[in-house]
Amino acid sequence: MSTRETSTAPVPMQWVGPLKVSGNVMTGSQEIPLATYESPLWPSVGRGAKISTLVESGIVATLVDERMARSILLEADDALAAVNAMAYLRSHEHELRDVVAETSRFARLIDMHHQIAGNLLFVRFEFSTGDASGHNMVTHASDRLMDYVLAHVSGVRYGSISGNYCSDKKATAVNGILGRGKNVVTEILIPRAIVSRWLRTTPEAVVDLNVRKNLIGTMLAGGLRSGNAHYANMLLGFYLATGQDAANIVEGSQGITHAEVRDGDLYFSCTLPNLIVGSVGNGKGLDFVEENLTRLGCREEREPGENARRLAVLCAATVLCGELSLMAAQTNPGELMQSHLQMERSKQSA
Amino acid sequence: MSTRETSTAPVPMQWVGPLKVSGNVMTGSQEIPLATYESPLWPSVGRGAKISTLVESGIVATLVDERMARSILLEADDALAAVNAMAYLRSHEHELRDVVAETSRFARLIDMHHQIAGNLLFVRFEFSTGDASGHNMVTHASDRLMDYVLAHVSGVRYGSISGNYCSDKKATAVNGILGRGKNVVTEILIPRAIVSRWLRTTPEAVVDLNVRKNLIGTMLAGGLRSGNAHYANMLLGFYLATGQDAANIVEGSQGITHAEVRDGDLYFSCTLPNLIVGSVGNGKGLDFVEENLTRLGCREEREPGENARRLAVLCAATVLCGELSLMAAQTNPGELMQSHLQMERSKQSA
Amino acid sequence: MSTRETSTAPVPMQWVGPLKVSGNVMTGSQEIPLATYESPLWPSVGRGAKISTLVESGIVATLVDERMARSILLEADDALAAVNAMAYLRSHEHELRDVVAETSRFARLIDMHHQIAGNLLFVRFEFSTGDASGHNMVTHASDRLMDYVLAHVSGVRYGSISGNYCSDKKATAVNGILGRGKNVVTEILIPRAIVSRWLRTTPEAVVDLNVRKNLIGTMLAGGLRSGNAHYANMLLGFYLATGQDAANIVEGSQGITHAEVRDGDLYFSCTLPNLIVGSVGNGKGLDFVEENLTRLGCREEREPGENARRLAVLCAATVLCGELSLMAAQTNPGELMQSHLQMERSKQSA
Amino acid sequence: MSTRETSTAPVPMQWVGPLKVSGNVMTGSQEIPLATYESPLWPSVGRGAKISTLVESGIVATLVDERMARSILLEADDALAAVNAMAYLRSHEHELRDVVAETSRFARLIDMHHQIAGNLLFVRFEFSTGDASGHNMVTHASDRLMDYVLAHVSGVRYGSISGNYCSDKKATAVNGILGRGKNVVTEILIPRAIVSRWLRTTPEAVVDLNVRKNLIGTMLAGGLRSGNAHYANMLLGFYLATGQDAANIVEGSQGITHAEVRDGDLYFSCTLPNLIVGSVGNGKGLDFVEENLTRLGCREEREPGENARRLAVLCAATVLCGELSLMAAQTNPGELMQSHLQMERSKQSA
Repeated sequence: MSTRETSTAPVPMQWVGPLKVSGNVMTGSQEIPLATYESPLWPSVGRGAKISTLVESGIVATLVDERMARSILLEADDALAAVNAMAYLRSHEHELRDVVAETSRFARLIDMHHQIAGNLLFVRFEFSTGDASGHNMVTHASDRLMDYVLAHVSGVRYGSISGNYCSDKKATAVNGILGRGKNVVTEILIPRAIVSRWLRTTPEAVVDLNVRKNLIGTMLAGGLRSGNAHYANMLLGFYLATGQDAANIVEGSQGITHAEVRDGDLYFSCTLPNLIVGSVGNGKGLDFVEENLTRLGCREEREPGENARRLAVLCAATVLCGELSLMAAQTNPGELMQSHLQMERSKQSA
Repeated sequence: MSTRETSTAPVPMQWVGPLKVSGNVMTGSQEIPLATYESPLWPSVGRGAKISTLVESGIVATLVDERMARSILLEADDALAAVNAMAYLRSHEHELRDVVAETSRFARLIDMHHQIAGNLLFVRFEFSTGDASGHNMVTHASDRLMDYVLAHVSGVRYGSISGNYCSDKKATAVNGILGRGKNVVTEILIPRAIVSRWLRTTPEAVVDLNVRKNLIGTMLAGGLRSGNAHYANMLLGFYLATGQDAANIVEGSQGITHAEVRDGDLYFSCTLPNLIVGSVGNGKGLDFVEENLTRLGCREEREPGENARRLAVLCAATVLCGELSLMAAQTNPGELMQSHLQMERSKQSA
Repeated sequence: MSTRETSTAPVPMQWVGPLKVSGNVMTGSQEIPLATYESPLWPSVGRGAKISTLVESGIVATLVDERMARSILLEADDALAAVNAMAYLRSHEHELRDVVAETSRFARLIDMHHQIAGNLLFVRFEFSTGDASGHNMVTHASDRLMDYVLAHVSGVRYGSISGNYCSDKKATAVNGILGRGKNVVTEILIPRAIVSRWLRTTPEAVVDLNVRKNLIGTMLAGGLRSGNAHYANMLLGFYLATGQDAANIVEGSQGITHAEVRDGDLYFSCTLPNLIVGSVGNGKGLDFVEENLTRLGCREEREPGENARRLAVLCAATVLCGELSLMAAQTNPGELMQSHLQMERSKQSA
Repeated sequence: MSTRETSTAPVPMQWVGPLKVSGNVMTGSQEIPLATYESPLWPSVGRGAKISTLVESGIVATLVDERMARSILLEADDALAAVNAMAYLRSHEHELRDVVAETSRFARLIDMHHQIAGNLLFVRFEFSTGDASGHNMVTHASDRLMDYVLAHVSGVRYGSISGNYCSDKKATAVNGILGRGKNVVTEILIPRAIVSRWLRTTPEAVVDLNVRKNLIGTMLAGGLRSGNAHYANMLLGFYLATGQDAANIVEGSQGITHAEVRDGDLYFSCTLPNLIVGSVGNGKGLDFVEENLTRLGCREEREPGENARRLAVLCAATVLCGELSLMAAQTNPGELMQSHLQMERSKQSA
């Protein structure tokens, strides 16, 4: 279709770490690539990674759920027709699964949700998608499901292949509540002495700041499931370096940081319910992406989905490193600006 | 701090267009660079751009507002101390302006807002920042303002240099309501015949889909000021190609598409109240970025701010092109998947 | 506990209508009681009710779903313990159902959802509750479920009997997405001539206003699933008159009005996914409430739940009447103020 | 217009307290009337009131702001016409103030905000309204402002007297950010021993629960500025007892509870930015309302606005009492259910 010449936008990239991870997906140390124009991100994440290597279990990353969603939009005769259509689909879920299974070796229909507003019916199909993030896989599957619906269900007509109840790359609540992408929780327990030496702060100061800034400050701003300082920065850097669709940082950034003082030490956690990542698929054919994924250990021979889960867990651990570091910095007056200025100077002298 | 080697993540980039723009900032035709792993974006935006060249005024882009914000967090003795602190700051706004003016040739304090929750005081300083997006400029200015506050205002203590009431790279309502970044509205009036030939749909179908998908669908999803199909995709591509901090697509994507049938023709508009872009500053020193900004006409000798406004308007017009094209495609069953498959095939045969 | 004297706040009440209803719950005409300090509400709802009697099917009210929810909060050792706890609960759902069934003749556990944030686990139990709105029934059941959890599941401790993921009387997205209360859609198709004569407007004007005000205006305001003009007014009046817990209008008001022009006529619908009403339980022992419920036909000998469903449908139809009337009024400059002034004068002359 | 007979819905009412208040509006002790079907509310608020009498300053209530808003909707030729219209209005603000001042002895225009989406212009007029909550006053004033706009501003047409950017009785973010109603913060510092004896819990338990339930739980639920347990309950009871438009509890309930442990004692605060109350106006002519307002000391000869401010402060203090009591109860397993059962038994034995 397009006969334009394709060049590249070479975004600066550094490997940081290693960070140390354990949990229900992987255990080990790993360096992480981050591509970004915001170079202070590298030492910031690096500081968090360093800390992870100093504590016994490192960052404990727990995969809670994984799924990809696409919601079609149907125009029904009226609300009753919409109710009846859903009843039909629920009683024929087996056939819907077959329709999906025929579209791909990996796509599997695992759940459905719906919304009815007046005569409009939004059906949110939820899939497992193997090692792919699954954008195209679920669009393709939903296309076939749409054909099935239009052929078998009376009283409904085509509205749209996507009805925004999915919801892709938009700030909504549905993804956090019903799930879209990998849902990963990362946790770390940091001894007080390490907090003091490496983060130049106290557990109490971090916990207080988290409540005031990430929870209350965001709430006052009219925030939507976005109780954190800057998940978006780490997600962008990681997504660009690994060939992900970085527009998904919109919903990816909707996560919550929770911290507690435990016996004088710092418990710090990041919950990322909408991590849309894949180790295969769009953006993955590029040489440097292949190389990065390989170096991350995400191109191994494994069961379908395992490489993507490893990738998600590493991404989430990276987010924790950057979040921890910035939060600690903001407990101290002037520190954020100082570190930025220091970066600028070191760049100029380089 | 970091002595790591910096390499690059070369994100694929194409120039699309030209698109045609008029309005209160610029008039003319312009090709646009988009860096993305999602190659179908190029022909999609290209289709919208083509249409803009076919109508008399092209895309009419109106700059509504511009400002950059940073909110500091203060811990007050109690709510009354917070009220008194704000009263002090309001009655000393002239001095605050002086403090800011000393930090930069371009930073100017233009407004303040605040929130009080219990004993917590969030002061949102709003600045003009010349041609820079202004992240660092406003952090630096806020650092000095914080010093001023701590030196002059009794009953308040340092909380954080950023209290999330700014709000940076998070899904919140405050930016759309109080403003952060450039606020740009883009509009186009497309004759029915052009809608039919180039978009293979009708004005009525686009308008209905917009109401059902972008307004109602998003609302059902628990969306926050996000009535659009995929602003995030165009923003990401444009931001990466022009050296912007692409994590700002989180709030940048919170905009609203509004369409109407007018005498049988299609009125189509995109409102983007949170476009955080700059033609100078972080990310702008890279050769390809300089080159792209130059080719976009955003490195001319102009009054401070004019290059950035041109950049914002071109960005917003690009968003309209991609939004229009996808919306039109989704009015037709199967079209979205078809165009993706076609792309895949053309890539494989290349 | 309290030995205070109980008096009453006699809120003014009128019966309006009758309105005409059909659909999957009931068919018939019914007058409706509304208790409110805002007396213009009566003629406003009355106008909508009148219109319902002029069209063949009246207001078509469709019950889409019904459930009541309570979410407990558990403190887990860590995220993995939370995951394991949920796995335990899902594999013992049968026992959980038994625990619930022992607490009441009517309470039945029908579904569970959960959220994990760091080491916090929120389990949202969803119940059917017969003819009761079910606030106390589900608290009682959740109390027993909490006992069960604490006795059987390792690694979790009591956090709270309610963790706000329920979510009761707060503006959230979860209720609309997962369901809480009755989910009722009401629809009416009004011939153009009736719109013109009784509402003094056109279908086009109502549709345009709905898009601009209820959808776009609310979205700009940072609204959350609240695309309507004033559902809260009708809900308050109906809830007070029928002994409901009127604080539930907070989530009850989170519904969406959708209108279309169909062959020149007006299709108008109200979707109310969070109607928390009951025909028995708290507030129902009062004489006037009994009387009102009886006159509404909601104290008949019927299968458990049927009286409550009738009540929900009548409530939703009442909402449509008031919404339609106000929307029509606001299409005409000055009409809203005129009708208020007219009311005031008629009160003064009375 | 309506010739129906008006009866009443006698909602059960009790006076609770007294509670003790100090701050920038009033100092003193005051009993409070609460009308509700949820009788456990009385002892619950009573417990909080008791505690307020045991600490030196009682509940410190700080009025932060007050205003009432109405947003008109204008259809502009295009976005530029909307921008020009706002420029015109801002440069003629003096005349707009005159227009408003002629509509009422008390209505004063104090600020304006606006939103532009495509060709739609929403102008949010903000007023002071003396002792009235001001619903009708601002509608009347906006009606005249609309006349002025249509007569003087070119390129805009009537859209609606209310464009939902006000925003009345809907769950939105705009009211908390721009202000609507009285903004009141209530705070109390409770010695550890009193927490232990009267609330049967510890400061730490309350603080932890507040973070987990009110902040994180609400955030997970997709909550919008609603970090509290049950403000809506107290607001409803207070509003009904004092003749307020109780549908305004929808936005009134959007407030935030913040608690801290201070030297072993409990700092507990409730922030209510959207308290829409008045001591005159609609609903105030009824005998029992007059009586209640008089007993509350809100019908005194004072400067305009002072009676309403006293009312707001008493309302906010009542909210704190109920919130504190419920939060304390939920720190203890089984306590909430126990107190409900106890109430039921005492009612049956009565």
